[in-house]
Amino acid sequence: MKVLEERIREEGRILSDTVLKVDSFLNHQVDTGLALQIGREFREVFGDLPVTKILTVEASGIQFAMAAGIAYKVPFIYAKKKKAVTLSESVYSAPVHSFTRQEDYRISISQNYLGPDDKVLIIDDFLATGAALVGLADIVEQSGAQLLGVGCVIEKSFQEGRSLLEKKGIAVHALARISSMAPGEVHFIANEEMIKESAGC
Amino acid sequence: MKVLEERIREEGRILSDTVLKVDSFLNHQVDTGLALQIGREFREVFGDLPVTKILTVEASGIQFAMAAGIAYKVPFIYAKKKKAVTLSESVYSAPVHSFTRQEDYRISISQNYLGPDDKVLIIDDFLATGAALVGLADIVEQSGAQLLGVGCVIEKSFQEGRSLLEKKGIAVHALARISSMAPGEVHFIANEEMIKESAGC
Repeated sequence: MKVLEERIREEGRILSDTVLKVDSFLNHQVDTGLALQIGREFREVFGDLPVTKILTVEASGIQFAMAAGIAYKVPFIYAKKKKAVTLSESVYSAPVHSFTRQEDYRISISQNYLGPDDKVLIIDDFLATGAALVGLADIVEQSGAQLLGVGCVIEKSFQEGRSLLEKKGIAVHALARISSMAPGEVHFIANEEMIKESAGC
Repeated sequence: MKVLEERIREEGRILSDTVLKVDSFLNHQVDTGLALQIGREFREVFGDLPVTKILTVEASGIQFAMAAGIAYKVPFIYAKKKKAVTLSESVYSAPVHSFTRQEDYRISISQNYLGPDDKVLIIDDFLATGAALVGLADIVEQSGAQLLGVGCVIEKSFQEGRSLLEKKGIAVHALARISSMAPGEVHFIANEEMIKESAGC
């Protein structure tokens, strides 16, 4: 997604080989117009699938799950990282290890809102180690729903997230795929390569 | 907001005199169409103010801040409850006491994204004790920005949040104002009363 790559080049701040800050337009301050474009782009890349629910995890996935929900005209659900005081009924849950924060937590969603009739897209801001996304995929499996794919805004393709998901047979799309980065420079996997890859070349 | 009151009556689950669950359509599973309507309604009630930024706090304010940001065509910022690993620069922050969880935490936003030129609307899902909203108002004050008002989706008007904010001279609007509730029943402050109140009668 050209406009997204340009914004990452212009505004992204690369703090190390693995840490990219995009909090001026994606995940602290949010450019609402761009977020809506991102939602429409997810619908473009996944196509007119019979999606019934978008699934994400709080907090920074919410704006993109909402944008995808708007594009597909379906509700979205955000998994909680803490057990809510008011979440009294049964939940599906999965453990997640955060490599960034070096901590373990559980994500959960109410069993009321996901079941065998659902067809789900998982949406998140980053695909890196894939930890939270694997947890979400685990929750979809527990619910008996069908997982149609995982969409991420930015992929750090030098980390193992994509291969973890693809090993489980999950279709993965990312709108900007970073092949490498260092302070002052960021390299994307070019669109042609992305097309070649998805054609299996 | 009639459609919102109806959904609260139909789907809201009242667990006690003070706890209302609306997680089937507002803050766990989210009806994206309704969220967009809520954003437009905020623009209706606040009018065409020269808003530059919407401010909220993660996580359950995000979908409504985004909807208001879409309606006003401006970015939104969500305050973080934890210091982000990648949030290295200076922040504005404020302490918040959660009565629901009986815990204290700090909310913070980067100083890069809010300053004296900004005109801000604060948006959140619930107005109850007002703790998080007072914290956000404090942050706006620290930044030198102008606070145009606070908008909440649901107000539990039998709690002290509104009066805390109004004492500070802040304009407060809520789209559904609950005067009292008990398992099986919920009472709203009627629209006429709201009009009378805002006319100072």
